[in-house]
Amino acid sequence: MRRNKRPSGAEQAAGNGLLHRRLFLSAGAAAIGSSALPETTAAAETLAIEPWMKTPGSPFTAYGQPSKYAGKIIRTFASAPGTTGTGTSRTPHHLLEGTITPNGLHFERHHAGIPDINPEAHRLLIHGRVKRPLVFTLDSLMRYPMESRVAFIECAGNSSVLYQKEPAQAGVQPIHGLLSCAEWTGVRLATLLQEAGVEPGAQWLLAEGADASGMSRSVPLAKAMDDALIAIYQNGEPVRPSNGYPMRLLLPGYEGNMNVKWLRRLKLTEGPTMTKDETSKYTILLNDGKSLQFCFAQEAKSVITRPSPGLTMGAAGLYEIAGLAWSGYGKITKVEVSADGGASWTLAALQEPVLPNAITRFRAPWRWDGGPAVLQSRAADDSGYVQPSRAKLIADRGARGAYHFNGITSWSVAQGGEVKHVYA
Amino acid sequence: MRRNKRPSGAEQAAGNGLLHRRLFLSAGAAAIGSSALPETTAAAETLAIEPWMKTPGSPFTAYGQPSKYAGKIIRTFASAPGTTGTGTSRTPHHLLEGTITPNGLHFERHHAGIPDINPEAHRLLIHGRVKRPLVFTLDSLMRYPMESRVAFIECAGNSSVLYQKEPAQAGVQPIHGLLSCAEWTGVRLATLLQEAGVEPGAQWLLAEGADASGMSRSVPLAKAMDDALIAIYQNGEPVRPSNGYPMRLLLPGYEGNMNVKWLRRLKLTEGPTMTKDETSKYTILLNDGKSLQFCFAQEAKSVITRPSPGLTMGAAGLYEIAGLAWSGYGKITKVEVSADGGASWTLAALQEPVLPNAITRFRAPWRWDGGPAVLQSRAADDSGYVQPSRAKLIADRGARGAYHFNGITSWSVAQGGEVKHVYA
Repeated sequence: MRRNKRPSGAEQAAGNGLLHRRLFLSAGAAAIGSSALPETTAAAETLAIEPWMKTPGSPFTAYGQPSKYAGKIIRTFASAPGTTGTGTSRTPHHLLEGTITPNGLHFERHHAGIPDINPEAHRLLIHGRVKRPLVFTLDSLMRYPMESRVAFIECAGNSSVLYQKEPAQAGVQPIHGLLSCAEWTGVRLATLLQEAGVEPGAQWLLAEGADASGMSRSVPLAKAMDDALIAIYQNGEPVRPSNGYPMRLLLPGYEGNMNVKWLRRLKLTEGPTMTKDETSKYTILLNDGKSLQFCFAQEAKSVITRPSPGLTMGAAGLYEIAGLAWSGYGKITKVEVSADGGASWTLAALQEPVLPNAITRFRAPWRWDGGPAVLQSRAADDSGYVQPSRAKLIADRGARGAYHFNGITSWSVAQGGEVKHVYA
Repeated sequence: MRRNKRPSGAEQAAGNGLLHRRLFLSAGAAAIGSSALPETTAAAETLAIEPWMKTPGSPFTAYGQPSKYAGKIIRTFASAPGTTGTGTSRTPHHLLEGTITPNGLHFERHHAGIPDINPEAHRLLIHGRVKRPLVFTLDSLMRYPMESRVAFIECAGNSSVLYQKEPAQAGVQPIHGLLSCAEWTGVRLATLLQEAGVEPGAQWLLAEGADASGMSRSVPLAKAMDDALIAIYQNGEPVRPSNGYPMRLLLPGYEGNMNVKWLRRLKLTEGPTMTKDETSKYTILLNDGKSLQFCFAQEAKSVITRPSPGLTMGAAGLYEIAGLAWSGYGKITKVEVSADGGASWTLAALQEPVLPNAITRFRAPWRWDGGPAVLQSRAADDSGYVQPSRAKLIADRGARGAYHFNGITSWSVAQGGEVKHVYA
């Protein structure tokens, strides 16, 4: 029996049904009237004996796979005309939870497909303005001390459709799916550079991949000496071929393609090399015709993953709003959510541990009254920066660019429960 | 040119070449003489153009897989005679790094194979001493507020061969492979129990799986109300079939089989149910013929994964000793390592963040002189407990049991570099 108990003033934290983030954590279901909780069924005390309970199940396997019933939880992808491996694949965050992206679903951006690299033949050269040019094999790197970093990687072009005049009728995966997060483990680049001996005057590195496009970017030496890794492992196992096997550069918080995959060469230089990949692309064209170049760190951003387009709302009642927040400038300090298109906001709960340059999961309880709503989230990081509205981002920067879109995303919920992407 | 610089007294942290844990972190390679680092090659400044740099690589895939060159990084498994799915599979920790176990390599312990569960037909019943028996579908659970916990799961029988009189000639995977760690996300069991309404007198729960063995265990109510989850996600994606799809019980820190997979029923009871799985197995037989029963939390433990048997040492010189530490009683506070069979010890560096009931990666630099050594690690947790030697564990408990072995493991390194399991 559903009592449809209304929240009291003390429970209400912002307009249109947003409740206090600690509701579940502190007091549990009792605090809001247990029958306000969703779709549980008072039960007969017996359950059906299903077929899988009657016969032994399937045997062991050397390397496991998802359930056949999870077959829709996959990356979507598109390639440039005439190619099969130049393009992007996107992570289905609307169907995932937590903060780690499983390796099979990490997004990809390839410029000439996935090279089939024999790790025994692969070499990493460090040269240019160093005292001792050095060549590393995978085996020699494996003897160096390692560190781990849980870090997101986000393509600079993620969410770029929000620069368009009309809201794309799409959901989290096509709009925001060029983002993933993993535990990366490898050797600090600083350790290798100290061994090579950086010469005075060296201020940059050219990082080059071993794919057929020779994808390459210029990296400031300061970042290389700070928290950069030569990543060899991704969520415990060797980096996947689609993510740089046998080794990639990891520059925590920096735009995706600077984290050069299949890394084969680091050349220390005085200035940036002005490669094709940082001049023809990955610059932000402004209204006055000038471009922003070398925008490295991804700005603070967030997106609500549940509810989101493609997920069906059930009956009116209590829901959890859940989403992802991240910043290339450090740690997420707070995420606010709104159910009335930004008229009022309340703090979301953040899942600990909150780590720098990693995805942070946020959550807020919401009592949906079955009527229209516009859901938004707004992240802030420990640099003091707050994620801007779409309107403010475009007012400041124009809408001619295709990169670093980090404005607020709005999902409308209609009477009846359909969720759509809107501008609000 | 290798200078074979000897460490000074300030660098030496314990006998037989162990160096200070902060060596790399603070001062980098320069501090120990860069040429003491392993097997790098002074380089010509050109690299070979490999075949994979000349043609476009392979296309996108919906769900990615490891490199074909990583084909040896697999679980090993064995089934009971006459079965294909009753037994264990083991995680290859000697070939992994970091702390997260990728889902394809999470260890398994099945009592009747892996059931092929249709999530739409699956139900979770909460009944017994509750005010309102409830039945949950996967969809109804998905509307509840969720939380994540990075948690290890370890089979109570992990490492049991160390109870034997002679050291098993085996390595990390066969000896310690019934251990894995993942980010689990789901609904707090406390939330569901509050909704069902726990009746006075209920002190335990029976947790039952939907596999053909009906694997079931008794769980104290206090644990259920504390940090227990109904886990729906494992490292971001739905829990794998081999780990309980579509839902499992997660009792952080408790012995593996209490984390009941394919969870279908929770019955609140006054006392433990004394199921077959907690009376015929999972008890510890003592020398006097009595047994310890209901030893729930896994005690603090550690193991060195590199070097370890099966991994070949190269030339004498600098190595990193790396390993795993974990405790079901809380956070790891320190790990000490020894290179001389326990005669002297030094602190290992711990990778942050150190989380309760999760695997912690430890590391220590070691200058191997090419001669014999015996490597050991010893973990302590924030309950004040210190991992005992094998001799002390057996003196206290006897060697008739098969569960909860958490004594120190010793790896001998021979002149020439072969690594073996020994008792020391």
